[in-house]
Amino acid sequence: MNKAIIRLKNSLNRGTQSLFRCDFHTSDAINQHLEEKVILTKDRYPNMKRGKFAELQGSHIQHFINLLGPTRVLTDPNDVEPYNIDWIKVVRGYSGIVLKPKTTQEVSEILKFCNSERLAVCTQGGNTGLVGGSVPVFDEVILSMSLMNKVIDINPLSGTLICEAGCVLENLDSALEEHNLMMPLDLGAKGSCHIGGNISTNAGGLRLIRYGSLHGSVLGVEAVLANGDVMDVLNVLKKDNTGYHLRHLFIGSEGTLGVVTKASIHCPPRPKALNLAFLGTDSFKNVLNILQLAKSCLSEILSSCEMIDDPSISAVIRNLGVNSPIGQFPFYVLIETSGSHTAHDEEKLNAFLEKAMAESYVLDGTVTNEPSRMQVLWQLRERIAEALLKDGPVYKYDVSLPVEHFYGIVPLLQEKLRGTSAEIVTGYGHIGDGNVHLNITSKFYDQDLVHDVIEPFVFKWVADHNGSISAEHGIGFKKTEFLHYSKKPGAIALMKQMKTLMDPNGILNPYKVLPED
Amino acid sequence: MNKAIIRLKNSLNRGTQSLFRCDFHTSDAINQHLEEKVILTKDRYPNMKRGKFAELQGSHIQHFINLLGPTRVLTDPNDVEPYNIDWIKVVRGYSGIVLKPKTTQEVSEILKFCNSERLAVCTQGGNTGLVGGSVPVFDEVILSMSLMNKVIDINPLSGTLICEAGCVLENLDSALEEHNLMMPLDLGAKGSCHIGGNISTNAGGLRLIRYGSLHGSVLGVEAVLANGDVMDVLNVLKKDNTGYHLRHLFIGSEGTLGVVTKASIHCPPRPKALNLAFLGTDSFKNVLNILQLAKSCLSEILSSCEMIDDPSISAVIRNLGVNSPIGQFPFYVLIETSGSHTAHDEEKLNAFLEKAMAESYVLDGTVTNEPSRMQVLWQLRERIAEALLKDGPVYKYDVSLPVEHFYGIVPLLQEKLRGTSAEIVTGYGHIGDGNVHLNITSKFYDQDLVHDVIEPFVFKWVADHNGSISAEHGIGFKKTEFLHYSKKPGAIALMKQMKTLMDPNGILNPYKVLPED
Ligand SMILES: Cc1cc2nc3c(=O)[nH]c(=O)nc-3n(C[C@H](O)[C@H](O)[C@H](O)COP(=O)(O)OP(=O)(O)OC[C@H]3O[C@@H](n4cnc5c(N)ncnc54)[C@H](O)[C@@H]3O)c2cc1C
Ligand SMILES: Cc1cc2nc3c(=O)[nH]c(=O)nc-3n(C[C@H](O)[C@H](O)[C@H](O)COP(=O)(O)OP(=O)(O)OC[C@H]3O[C@@H](n4cnc5c(N)ncnc54)[C@H](O)[C@@H]3O)c2cc1C
Repeated sequence: MNKAIIRLKNSLNRGTQSLFRCDFHTSDAINQHLEEKVILTKDRYPNMKRGKFAELQGSHIQHFINLLGPTRVLTDPNDVEPYNIDWIKVVRGYSGIVLKPKTTQEVSEILKFCNSERLAVCTQGGNTGLVGGSVPVFDEVILSMSLMNKVIDINPLSGTLICEAGCVLENLDSALEEHNLMMPLDLGAKGSCHIGGNISTNAGGLRLIRYGSLHGSVLGVEAVLANGDVMDVLNVLKKDNTGYHLRHLFIGSEGTLGVVTKASIHCPPRPKALNLAFLGTDSFKNVLNILQLAKSCLSEILSSCEMIDDPSISAVIRNLGVNSPIGQFPFYVLIETSGSHTAHDEEKLNAFLEKAMAESYVLDGTVTNEPSRMQVLWQLRERIAEALLKDGPVYKYDVSLPVEHFYGIVPLLQEKLRGTSAEIVTGYGHIGDGNVHLNITSKFYDQDLVHDVIEPFVFKWVADHNGSISAEHGIGFKKTEFLHYSKKPGAIALMKQMKTLMDPNGILNPYKVLPED
Repeated sequence: MNKAIIRLKNSLNRGTQSLFRCDFHTSDAINQHLEEKVILTKDRYPNMKRGKFAELQGSHIQHFINLLGPTRVLTDPNDVEPYNIDWIKVVRGYSGIVLKPKTTQEVSEILKFCNSERLAVCTQGGNTGLVGGSVPVFDEVILSMSLMNKVIDINPLSGTLICEAGCVLENLDSALEEHNLMMPLDLGAKGSCHIGGNISTNAGGLRLIRYGSLHGSVLGVEAVLANGDVMDVLNVLKKDNTGYHLRHLFIGSEGTLGVVTKASIHCPPRPKALNLAFLGTDSFKNVLNILQLAKSCLSEILSSCEMIDDPSISAVIRNLGVNSPIGQFPFYVLIETSGSHTAHDEEKLNAFLEKAMAESYVLDGTVTNEPSRMQVLWQLRERIAEALLKDGPVYKYDVSLPVEHFYGIVPLLQEKLRGTSAEIVTGYGHIGDGNVHLNITSKFYDQDLVHDVIEPFVFKWVADHNGSISAEHGIGFKKTEFLHYSKKPGAIALMKQMKTLMDPNGILNPYKVLPED
């Protein structure tokens, strides 16, 4: 050994608790502070036609009771109702039944039966999806995965987790904590969403810049196909090149190609140190400079890079009484680091800050590693959606753009909407991933403005700039007609062929993801 | 700012050059130091039957010349011959033609024509594949991607690269260097292999523990389907949930579902500091302890963790005259760190080493950050394959196992082979990813021992321990009959259905990946 051996600093702050972050986006173009009863989807969208599926009969119900027993087949309308309505209370089906399987075998029997009887099925995880994918459009049988919630194995050595699809994300993260591991994804809905739902929507969230997407983290899945066949590719291996990589068919296909029943996940070591900086700057160009400098100086410890514009922060300050620790600037950037060594991480962060200030990228800022102060700072980012809603209905779009175009649409849309009911346009989001949340605050809900002016403009601009019209939330029920803005006809045609191959009777989550012919 | 601001140390060692590492594995169960002419595959495997494809006619050749001009259509046997033989000179087709398209449009025209004429096609990248996938089995038309070698765009801000599929991996890494970015994968064949070949084989390599698999790094692809249709999902977005994630169909499908023509890749920042430790230990149990401690102490900077057993190192010392810097131990571990801060990385590494020695996991070791010394240390790992071959024919298997079973098969196989021609069994490999290279040195090549004793035992043991019979190299031509050891019948059936859907005439790389019915 020709090197000095230095002790790990005692100050190592093991198991720093992770912060609760609510990255709540209400749905696109929907005002969500109404109290009234949710309109049935079939009435809200009168042009939607129910597919040629069977209607639920007493004999079907009896078959399900024989299979699951009476307590795991819900048919009382009061019991079924919550499963018919989505989290943001915008879409509502009128299914008469909820099934709660406990095993893969039961899921298989259910789908086999539904397939042969031509009963349509809507699989539901934590029901936190934001595009209407998790509830029936008409009277589809609801398959709730909530009782398939067992952790099957945690292997601390290889950093792998195997669990059933109905496990709640936050519970998995807690189970991993004692092994000094963590879930590679984190989102505001973590207290309710299931890992099966996360996989089916390819959920992104706040840590993607550091831990990558689920296509990288999911090592294997077990899924049941429409005909009841069990597809077992529940691998825990990091390297396995034996044939087509089928698990990716189920990541992001929103329950239309199969029901995910189990998953194995690669789980990184839990960070021992967390730091958060909240910075003010004068231009979007300097936001980009900050991002680039952060990537270079913070590199492997950069775990979040969020941008917020002044109208967004102002709404939080004005409407929620939260204080900003720094003066007013056109733009703000939140930088989070997570790493394995407190002193090193602080030193890197300080070097970054010094440089950013010397170059005048950053004009003012504050930095902390105290959990309570971090929580306060995160509020400035997390409570924007809530704050904006206090000013009136908000039309919201969750889009991805090449990072240089991240903010470009905001001033253009502002210009376009001048003199209308919806004059205030704001933008914030995961700039590290090019994922911007575009918000338009309106005086009242104006359906024509949304459909005739805002949506065509936003989706076309995003498409013209090689962006994605749905960065994280998926297509679900609500965006099928816009899919063509982000996917070419050839790709959509292949998707349809795959759907036909894997679900020839179309029983799995019909009316979702793919547009009508 | 309530924190001390400390300057980045001047010692930051920007752009430390990456080391050449030859992670060369000859093929499974094949002795590769023969000089003689390679036997035609059709003669070596007399039971293989040529599919009902058309035979190449003068009119076909004329059509291709009209399309590409005369210089990009090779038909002279001397020109064609190198494309018929694989890198390790084990399989050899007898194709009469090589086509060298320069554009996606040309690839499209070629496939459209081949599909309508029922001409089988074998796509070839750098021809470094190790399972016979990259050369024709019979007389398939060879589609060489080598002229599609343009870098289309590097975006330093978002860390993304767009390029044509025929770009050589090392060239891409060099092009990224000036932007302080790197390719997320590294392998011994990097001077020859193409990014299109890497994607088609889902190449793993030495940095997977740090940068993850290509399913995480590849953001988009453009591919041409069997019928000539261009599938353009060439996204540069990190978040895009619009429909099925089709690009994953082409990652790891070894040219049987489409020809990859372009790709976009997420490229991480280039590390500024590299360190390498070479450690000796007394048991496999302590190898696992070292792995776990390295993951915990080195966490985000751990970029390689390789295990080597004593017979492997001894062969390098004995047969190649390389010196080991430490005494003799039953097992050795190589640990590489790459990070953004020299002093921090060294401090973390030293803390890890101190702990590993205090716990007696490590009995002796050496550590360095000097490029020339690192190169010498890497030789002890990289030249094992070469060294073992000096003792006679070597039967080689590239398998994945849950990490606790990583070495289990070595002593068992040794026991089983006692008294045969093949008594020396060694194991080494990427323990961080559970990927072990199993080597059996023999006095002479004994086909019966391989087929009747070794292969059934190895593949069954791997399958029984939930491993993969091909960790990195794929199935290609040579492993189709063993696919069932790692994939269940339901999964293989779905693979076949997908093949039929996407290539109904079976013209793309026939005889590869999927077993005959
Ligand atoms: C407060 C809040 C914050 C959010 N933040 C983010 C964020 O940062 N990033 C992000 O990506 N999303 C976010 N979302 C959206 C949502 O949480 C995610 O889409 C989540 O992954 C959905 O999981 P779930 O279990 O609730 O699925 P559900 O809502 O129940 O279902 C979603 C879709 O998946 C299907 N599905 C569910 N389970 C299965 C299964 N086992 N097999 C097959 N199909 C299944 C459903 O049919 C449906 O199409 C947020 C939502 C809320 C309410
Ligand atoms: C010295 C050495 C070290 C190696 N180390 C590693 C390692 O560490 N990890 C690892 O995973 N592999 C390793 N390999 C194996 C090999 O390098 C990889 O499989 C590599 O990714 C193959 O790339 P290629 O361009 O040479 O592809 P080829 O060998 O030309 O082709 C491989 C397969 O991909 C298909 N293909 C190629 N290009 C395309 C395309 N554009 N579109 C569709 N299909 C295509 C071919 O038809 C064939 O089936 C090593 C090989 C050598 C010789």
